Formats: sequence, structure tokens, C-alpha cells
Amino acid sequence: MSGFGIDHLPYGVFSVDGGERRVGVRFENTVVDLHAATGRPEFLAPSLNAFLALGPEVWRQTREEVAGLVETGVASSPLAEVALHLPIEVADYVDFYASEHHAANVGRIFRPDQQPLLPNWKHLPVGYHGRAGTVVVSGTDVVRPSGQRASTGSTTAGPPAPTYGPSRRLDIEAELGFVVGAPSELGSRVPYDAFAEHVFGVVGLNDWSARDIQAWEYVPLGPFLGKSFATSISHWVTPLAALDAAWCALPDQDPTPLPYLGPGRVRGLDIDVEVVLNGEVVSRPPYRTMYWSPQQMLAHLTVNGASLRTGDLFGSGTISGPEAGERGSFLELSWGGQEPFGDGRTFLEDGDEVALRYSAPGTGGGRISLGDVTGRIAPAR
Amino acid sequence: MSGFGIDHLPYGVFSVDGGERRVGVRFENTVVDLHAATGRPEFLAPSLNAFLALGPEVWRQTREEVAGLVETGVASSPLAEVALHLPIEVADYVDFYASEHHAANVGRIFRPDQQPLLPNWKHLPVGYHGRAGTVVVSGTDVVRPSGQRASTGSTTAGPPAPTYGPSRRLDIEAELGFVVGAPSELGSRVPYDAFAEHVFGVVGLNDWSARDIQAWEYVPLGPFLGKSFATSISHWVTPLAALDAAWCALPDQDPTPLPYLGPGRVRGLDIDVEVVLNGEVVSRPPYRTMYWSPQQMLAHLTVNGASLRTGDLFGSGTISGPEAGERGSFLELSWGGQEPFGDGRTFLEDGDEVALRYSAPGTGGGRISLGDVTGRIAPAR
Repeated sequence: MSGFGIDHLPYGVFSVDGGERRVGVRFENTVVDLHAATGRPEFLAPSLNAFLALGPEVWRQTREEVAGLVETGVASSPLAEVALHLPIEVADYVDFYASEHHAANVGRIFRPDQQPLLPNWKHLPVGYHGRAGTVVVSGTDVVRPSGQRASTGSTTAGPPAPTYGPSRRLDIEAELGFVVGAPSELGSRVPYDAFAEHVFGVVGLNDWSARDIQAWEYVPLGPFLGKSFATSISHWVTPLAALDAAWCALPDQDPTPLPYLGPGRVRGLDIDVEVVLNGEVVSRPPYRTMYWSPQQMLAHLTVNGASLRTGDLFGSGTISGPEAGERGSFLELSWGGQEPFGDGRTFLEDGDEVALRYSAPGTGGGRISLGDVTGRIAPAR
Repeated sequence: MSGFGIDHLPYGVFSVDGGERRVGVRFENTVVDLHAATGRPEFLAPSLNAFLALGPEVWRQTREEVAGLVETGVASSPLAEVALHLPIEVADYVDFYASEHHAANVGRIFRPDQQPLLPNWKHLPVGYHGRAGTVVVSGTDVVRPSGQRASTGSTTAGPPAPTYGPSRRLDIEAELGFVVGAPSELGSRVPYDAFAEHVFGVVGLNDWSARDIQAWEYVPLGPFLGKSFATSISHWVTPLAALDAAWCALPDQDPTPLPYLGPGRVRGLDIDVEVVLNGEVVSRPPYRTMYWSPQQMLAHLTVNGASLRTGDLFGSGTISGPEAGERGSFLELSWGGQEPFGDGRTFLEDGDEVALRYSAPGTGGGRISLGDVTGRIAPAR
């Protein structure tokens, strides 16, 4: 099983021999050129955005059409012979903080003498805007960022004069990303139930983080340079339709959220994640343990009337399960750098290669593999 | 004096009778159609971005060419006969917090028992990413946002259960915006001295803010829905070249910032701002009192290797001077809602109209008027 069978059919952008970028669908280890196969102009494009903007009825029809093409046999290129590119032109990028285990771990590490969760955490999915222009595709090297650093282990109340230099606490955040296809109107909110009318699908997402830069800068306006140097997403966008069998109940929410957050109907995706460092699996975060659901994140994002655009991307935040081997960041795996894990590891070193792998129940009874997300750390310039 | 003479010549996007959007230059109370006047294809476009991407040498040559056209006489449309549109396609939007008086006022209002400035504030220009997709052009109505609200006067440590509804503490932030024209490479920083190689010009900017939503949500990841519903910018982008006579010394910086922030060479713009509420001037914030300079904000934004794109927009943060009549937000003018100002005002009411007006020394010895920023509050939906 490749995980890329007829029940998956994710979308991406590819080129052959340096030619024009175009939209393709992955089937097994081949790529189907959708423009060549259908003649539709939205597929001769450097991103999925023109197709995504057409909305859910076109997405549904296209998925049927592509499945038919694949079943009857269609010309395709071997994956090894194409170059893959960033699949979407990212409009706005928002990152949430939807795992209770992650948020509580971070609270325990940074504020050991206080309640692990802040007062607002169980009332709303906390989120913030990240930098859309530095979202890069899987396989792109990540240059170690430099900046103003807090001393190791310190928080905002830390040293009065920061040091400048390459980050010493470079980290990953294993996340799931959601890709918005259909826009919404400024001044109106997107109800909880309208999720599938706007969200096209999901990507793997690694929200690279420089913890020492972040710790010094983030009060009071949130993370900025500690995150904005790079965010990696997978080559492949898995349509929601391929995840029909993956929906599951999430943990109960207490206190009951406000009505716009659809209380009592909280469902998530039963996606297994693997964090792979230099070829070794170091963690297995389970997405089904998240507190806030994808629908709740979208309803919250727009409750103030903020509009959606085609290409908007929102991340789940770090996925961490309740067990030590289920944590989605090195910050947690090494407990703030105090408890080395694996072969004595705390944070990322130059030359390290990280891969995030994702799998989910498919509609055909087996499992599908979402697009993985890889990146190698290049030394600071 | 109109403030829009030969020494100004700001750029915008306009259409006539519902026709195609195109790039124009304002001269007095007329708009020059640059595509008609020059035949250049980058001016037959719905935004300035294609022109901005051409870089500083083309910007300089074009300004000379346009000045020549205007002096020798060129066909133009009366301002009253054109529709004006959002001048740029915003790539990433970042907002800073560069006024010491504003940051200290906010600190005194929200944390009266602590030092007004946080430990990092004088070491780096604090900033965060806002929502690019909800940047709207001057004249666009702003729908009062709804969301989870803190109780009046409370901060994050406030009530355990928030209320839901329209914001009761809707505010403005009078700012200056900087428009990036020429991009930079991912993984490299833009030095302090390279400001004019990347930044094309400035816009007026109103960062509408819902203080009760913001107060409840902003710890630990910063402002989100309290800001993301709308940010208004002026119709006109004033090129840096029109501000050559406006550069001035900013207040001394102590402690001395790190070398990448160009210490000892801190210059700002001598721009006067007026905050006008329903036709009455309620405040006159002076931009020359800012702590962090435009060059420092850009150097900081990219010090971690984050790349710039054409259309990136960064705001100064609220401009507040040392005097009570120089504060750039209603939060400060009403001291957290405790001291009504003007005709008994605290925050914005439905139907209120706000205009921000900007003027600066021009190169011709007089003053130029930057594009103003207006908006009316529409009731919550």
C-alpha cells in the first residue's frame, strides 16, 4: 500500500524539465497532469488557487472525474521525473494552539509556579497571524535564524540585555494545516456548520520555531521573529473528501464553549503523526487528542467578521498527546532543554533533517498517507 | 495650497465609469492616467504592485518623468469623476509598537502597579503580524465586530467566563504605514542602510481595534480578533522621494540598541497627524516623537532571514506624543474609558466617522498632505 491509492488523490503543483508549473493529482507513485487530462484552464497555473476558488461543488465533481480518469487509465508522469512546488499561494496564515496537552506542557515548562493553562484557553481557540510570505514547501532547507535571544531557560522576565546571534534553541512544531478554498464576505462570520463550504483540504505543516528568540520577544504582542523565518508545508493537499472516514470524537469540552463554537458536536480527525529526526522516529503525536476542532478554529477566526480568501492557511498548533512519546515539539520532548531525549538531543543542530509523516483511515478501508513535510537545517548565514 | 502639488505626486489606483482599474498619480485635484500617459503596461493593473516590483531606479526615473509630464501639461481626470481603490495588493501586514508614549500609556492603563514598559521594549521594536486580507481602503465602512469580550476595564486576569456580543470598546489607532516595493531573499537580512532600496513609500493607516476582545484573547500569542476585522489605509501612496525634506532626528535611544539596529543614526519623519471625529479634531499626534525609526523596524523584521515581498505593509503602531492632546487612540484619550474626552466620549459609537489627516514638509518649501484615511462605524450584524 502506497497510501496514495484511488481513495486519496491529493492535489499538488509540478513541473517537468523546468517547464511551466501546473496542477496535478498524485496516484500511487505517479502524477496526473490535470490540464492535459481535462483541458481546464484553472489547472495550467502555478498554484491550486484558481481551482480552489471555484468552490465545493466543482471540487466534488472534479474528484469524481479524476477518479474516473485514473480507473480507466490516464497518462501520468513518474513522481521521480517531476519537480514539486509550493501547492498554494498562501493568502493569510494563522496558527492556532489547539492541543491541551501542548499548551499545558508549555505552561508547566515556562511558568512552573502557575496554573498550566491561562484563563482564556478553554473559552476560545487561541491563535495568531504568522508570516504567509515565508511558507515554504517540503524539502526546502531552513536557514538557522539569528536575532535577539533570551538566555537559556529564561522567560520574558529574564535578563535586561539580550544577546545577539544564531538561535540556540531551534525547534519544530508538528501540526496539521487547513487550506481555505472558497472566500467569505468581510463583515460576516462563517458558521460552525459551513466548514466544508470553505475548507478544501489539509496539508502537513511544520511551524519551525526559535524558542530563545520567541521567549524574549513575545510579550505582549505574541510570537514574531521566533516563527516568521520559515513554515514548511507538504507538497500534497489532501481534499476533505478523502478524509470522510477519519472524523472522530474529540475529548469532551468543559466548560461548554459559547454557541458560535458549536458545543457538543466537537469532531476531529483521527490522523497519526510521526516525527522523524535523521531517520529515527522520535515521537508519535495523535491528532485525535486535540481539544479544539477544525470547525471551531474556523468559526472563531471569522466571528469578528474577518473575511476568508482563497489560499488562506490555518494551522492546528503543535499536536501533542498525553504521553511523553506523543509530544510534537523538541521543547516538550526535552522538557525545556532539561531532559535530553533520543541520543541526548535537546534542540535542532545544523545538518539535522526532520520529516513529519501523517496517516489516516481512508474511505476504502485501508489507510492513506498525507503528504509528508521534510526540512534540513542549514547553518546561520 | 492643496498639499498635492508638483513636490508630492503620490500614486494610487482608480477607475472611471466602472472601467478597468489602473494606476494614477494625483496632481492637485486631478488624477493622471499613467498608462495613457506613458504606455507602460505595469500601469494598466489593479494595484501598484507590478510597478513597485521594478525597484528604486525605476521609481526614481518614473517620478522624474511624471513631474515632466505634469509641468508640460498632460491629460488628467478631475478627482471628483474617478473612483479610487485599494492601492496595493497587500502581501504580509506587520504592525509595530514604536511609540514610547503609546506603549507607556497602555502599560499605565492596563498594569498600573508595574513598570509601564516591559523589559524587552527598549531593546527591540516589538511587532506582530496582522491580517493582510482585511486591509481596506479609506472610505470603507467598518462593521462593529462581535466576539468574546472581557468585562470593561478587566485584563487577562479578568472574569473566568467571557460574554459574547458586539465590541463595546471599539477604537482607532492612528499610524503611519510603510509599503515595501522591492523583495528580498529568504534567509538573508535587509541591513539598516538598505531601507530605501526596498521601501517605496508611506500611507496613512488606521488599525481599528476592539479593546474588550483584545484584552481577553491576547495572552500569550498576541492580538488576533481584536484587530483582524479591518485595517484602513489611504488611497494615496506617497513615495519616499516626496519626503526628502521631512526626515528629522528622533529622541535619543537608551540603552544603545544592538548594532543591526543602526544605533546613533536614528531618524524619523516630521509628519503631523490629526485625528478627526465627526468633523472635530480630537488629537494631534506628532510622528517625530516615535522611539523606533522606520529603518530599525525594517532591519528588525528581517534580521531572522524573513524575506520581503512586493506589497508587504508595515505599520508604525499608534502614534502618541507626550501631551494629552497628542494621543493616537481613544484608549489613551479616555484613559482606559475612565476619563471621557471631547463631548463626553470614551470609545466609538455606531455612525461615528473618523478621519486621520497627515501633513509633512515638502521639498518645495511648503507642506504636502499625505492621503487621509476615513471610515464610518456600521452597526454589528
